[in-house]
Amino acid sequence: MSELWFEDLSTGSVWTSTGRTLTEADVVAFCGVSGDFHPLHVDAEYAARSRFGARLVHGALVLSIATGQRGQLPFVGEAFVAFVEIRKWAMRRPVHIGDTVRTRTTVEEARATSDGVRGIVVQRVEVLNQHDEVVHDGEMVNVVRTRPGC
Amino acid sequence: MSELWFEDLSTGSVWTSTGRTLTEADVVAFCGVSGDFHPLHVDAEYAARSRFGARLVHGALVLSIATGQRGQLPFVGEAFVAFVEIRKWAMRRPVHIGDTVRTRTTVEEARATSDGVRGIVVQRVEVLNQHDEVVHDGEMVNVVRTRPGC
Repeated sequence: MSELWFEDLSTGSVWTSTGRTLTEADVVAFCGVSGDFHPLHVDAEYAARSRFGARLVHGALVLSIATGQRGQLPFVGEAFVAFVEIRKWAMRRPVHIGDTVRTRTTVEEARATSDGVRGIVVQRVEVLNQHDEVVHDGEMVNVVRTRPGC
Repeated sequence: MSELWFEDLSTGSVWTSTGRTLTEADVVAFCGVSGDFHPLHVDAEYAARSRFGARLVHGALVLSIATGQRGQLPFVGEAFVAFVEIRKWAMRRPVHIGDTVRTRTTVEEARATSDGVRGIVVQRVEVLNQHDEVVHDGEMVNVVRTRPGC
């Protein structure tokens, strides 16, 4: 299933996902899944009067979609053991219903562990909107397996 | 709507949410919302053969539910301006379908901004399971408004 394994990854490798338009349905579904029904997300009238001018897509939804979009990566299959840490995550710009986002990841660090069968991969993760603005960015830390039999 | 505003928050204030049982329905819904259909989350047979022994609840779903659970906080109403940053977030233990989680938050820092109408509140956020084990923890940074008219 995986096309790439730990030893195939090197620092500086960049990969960008396809885009996804954030719809009203995504926001409504995420309210139920997360339990976050803050009026900035669910009350169009309240949000219109706020500094944001319209309902906001939850920050945690944008982050969640970034985790889904990086699932297109060629090592996020069998090679992927676990997502273990977010080192930092900044929500730089508001994201609204109708915006289209894509996720760009860069391998910042790929360090073998002493057991020889896996490694730690730190990704720089940037979420870009349709204007090529970075709306969220941060670092995700993952455990990735080496090629079986190696 | 808000019971507490920025000036009511002080370092060390602790608050714990009610619990929520993580169901199969939550995991299935989150697959569609996030786009993360990794076999560890959707393939019961694959997950049974993995080191985790059973399907995992997505780390980003646990984090998302923590953001919903902190919505019960008395300042996460009108006083809440924006969730702007995750300083760090560690996924310390696997979370499975059937586990029940609650979120404990502690105000680590409450710093007024120069405009006098808002402040920065850093929360230590811990997600605990039914055995009182911390499964995830980290820090969230928020902008919180002062009481209107003050």
